[in-house]
Amino acid sequence: MGARARTAGRQLSLLPTATRNAALEGMAQALEAPNAALRAANEADLADARAAALTPALLDRLTLTPKRIAGMAAGCREVAAIPDPLNELMDARTLPNGLRIAKRRVPLGVLGVIFESRPNVTAEIGALCVKTGNAVIMRGGKESLRTNTVLVELIRGALVECGAPADAVQLITDTDRALVAELLAMDDVLDLVIPRGGSGLQAMVREHARMPVIYGGIGVCHLFVDATADVAKSVEIVHNAKTQAPSVCNALDTILVHRAVLDAFVPLAAARLAADGVTLYCDPPSLATLRARPKLPQDRFQPAGPEHFGLEFLSLALSVKVVDSLDEAIAHIARYSTNHSDGILTNDYANATTFCDRVDSAAVYVNASTRFTDGGQFGLGAEVAISTQRLHARGPMATQELTTYKWIVQGDWHVRS
Amino acid sequence: MGARARTAGRQLSLLPTATRNAALEGMAQALEAPNAALRAANEADLADARAAALTPALLDRLTLTPKRIAGMAAGCREVAAIPDPLNELMDARTLPNGLRIAKRRVPLGVLGVIFESRPNVTAEIGALCVKTGNAVIMRGGKESLRTNTVLVELIRGALVECGAPADAVQLITDTDRALVAELLAMDDVLDLVIPRGGSGLQAMVREHARMPVIYGGIGVCHLFVDATADVAKSVEIVHNAKTQAPSVCNALDTILVHRAVLDAFVPLAAARLAADGVTLYCDPPSLATLRARPKLPQDRFQPAGPEHFGLEFLSLALSVKVVDSLDEAIAHIARYSTNHSDGILTNDYANATTFCDRVDSAAVYVNASTRFTDGGQFGLGAEVAISTQRLHARGPMATQELTTYKWIVQGDWHVRS
Repeated sequence: MGARARTAGRQLSLLPTATRNAALEGMAQALEAPNAALRAANEADLADARAAALTPALLDRLTLTPKRIAGMAAGCREVAAIPDPLNELMDARTLPNGLRIAKRRVPLGVLGVIFESRPNVTAEIGALCVKTGNAVIMRGGKESLRTNTVLVELIRGALVECGAPADAVQLITDTDRALVAELLAMDDVLDLVIPRGGSGLQAMVREHARMPVIYGGIGVCHLFVDATADVAKSVEIVHNAKTQAPSVCNALDTILVHRAVLDAFVPLAAARLAADGVTLYCDPPSLATLRARPKLPQDRFQPAGPEHFGLEFLSLALSVKVVDSLDEAIAHIARYSTNHSDGILTNDYANATTFCDRVDSAAVYVNASTRFTDGGQFGLGAEVAISTQRLHARGPMATQELTTYKWIVQGDWHVRS
Repeated sequence: MGARARTAGRQLSLLPTATRNAALEGMAQALEAPNAALRAANEADLADARAAALTPALLDRLTLTPKRIAGMAAGCREVAAIPDPLNELMDARTLPNGLRIAKRRVPLGVLGVIFESRPNVTAEIGALCVKTGNAVIMRGGKESLRTNTVLVELIRGALVECGAPADAVQLITDTDRALVAELLAMDDVLDLVIPRGGSGLQAMVREHARMPVIYGGIGVCHLFVDATADVAKSVEIVHNAKTQAPSVCNALDTILVHRAVLDAFVPLAAARLAADGVTLYCDPPSLATLRARPKLPQDRFQPAGPEHFGLEFLSLALSVKVVDSLDEAIAHIARYSTNHSDGILTNDYANATTFCDRVDSAAVYVNASTRFTDGGQFGLGAEVAISTQRLHARGPMATQELTTYKWIVQGDWHVRS
């Protein structure tokens, strides 16, 4: 599979932009067409999953509704519409000796993507790889194996119809877990591995991977409400950052509140959050402030333990801590953040600047919700992950971040003296 | 050491450009000043090395002559003169919703550099890290431990004099080899590891490293002499690529010759190379061509075995193979190259274009010697390595390639709808 991926990837990357985009349109049309095999495969996966008593949430993630299939097709067309990153020339110049040099953007090579049960990830990853000329070897969760198999056949069919090599997109259909460790040792074949899943998967990859890995998707996100923050607007931002999509990686986990706005901000924010079902794990000063207001829904306010800081809640819950200074807020973030998305809410120019200088997260915010960290929101298009790794590319791994470059050096029979 | 490196690196990266450059000037001055401790340490290392019967080549690499020390000081000043990569803003724009986003260039973080005996590497790596705001933990060869210890003290002294944190540059002084494996497991501390050494060191790193690694310095480099190549100029280029510095990674290893220029090119090139002491391992057609010319120095021409292709010679030797087409040359390179530096010598425009499209090396050349792959030659300044890894940065790892970015997102109290 690895050797076939390498060859197919090289072929794919040499195809014109129009051909790769035509394959994406072909994928979209194949998804939209009535597809009995896909329906049957998904129903069989769901039947097994029900028999294995998977949770309703997992069953839901596994289900391919017509709306989700339409979403996958729309996703293919969105990726087709993104400008082609390949062959862009960068840093082109003529050196004093007359050599002309430039970086030309090329694919990363062969990617390994390991993911859990959602089958729409299969289409998404496939589309991004077709666009960027990368070959991919996918390993999905065993719960969605039949569905993924049909989806990958559909993608491969769309490639072949455009004259592109089917083996640019391959799926591992053997569900033996030992194969994942074997895959992670294949550094001669895979240029990069992207695990899309929880901390268990990430730990396994960390243990076994011999090639570069983009870890992402784990965000312990903070907002610091500074002494000069606009209180009403800050309430809206923390509410948005927590509740707009509570189970995603850029959702808010911890509010840091400057003591100067403790009384003005915390009761208002707590009321707004609690009204939408959020539980607040509060440090002693913030809890005392809330307990002093018996009309507030006290059962939503719990004392925070050490376990509530540095925790990714992924649910309608967050922690609250009062700090005495910007420095204390920055130090808390340095200690507990996963360096995904962290922000300051302030009207103090110097504090905003200091926060941006000193907080080292993939996305650092001033006066905005952390929910914007996303390829689509940043205008980059679809992404395979939001990296919290410190490689040369950080944050949303969109089409450009799935490429590297080669130097092209054009001489007039130059020798080095 | 790791925790101290993290803290010191953050502090270093926040210092103004002028302070980091002043530390580099301080390093240069400290190197130029008479330094009895450095001399004594190097003499003690050399005495041990002689007692251990190290080869003359290794003894030479270990020796700090006044000229080499002056070179190290000059290197510090050259690095100081490079534009500061930190805090450069990239891809800045205002999104339709009014959010202002930009990538801001920041250091990679904490680097681990493992190298063998040359002590000038210590100064070079130290200077590049001070410039780029990265902290570094170095592990040098045990043969140069005393010399490296004094050099690192000198760098740390220069940092402290400028108000910069000494712990940005640290040296592991325990020479137990097991510590290297331990270092390679510290993915919570080291953001990137750079092994500067041979294939034994690289294999060990590949086995144990849990963080991203930049492998480099192993170059099996090819030049393809096409049917339309200018023969006399091609002779000069292959001669330059092999002999200008035969022991370095971008030196030529294999000449691929189009059959159409076999008779015109090979005897001329062989005579020129052999005159400078180069041994040519030739495939049957090229060997037959040379054997048919008895006046040439026949003892320099040996039959090539399979082991001579895909081999990094690092000496005055190379292999020669005759091919029937551009495709065959490209296929040979795809199979045997380490994707460092490969080139075509041609006057055919379409072939030059096809070669650049289809050869996937960090540097792809048309009508120039492979010896140009080098940060200095490319106008990038000093480099820590020439990467043959397919990360987002390839080729010379100069100051810019030792950085990543963070997204800065400035809002006007934006929430995501």
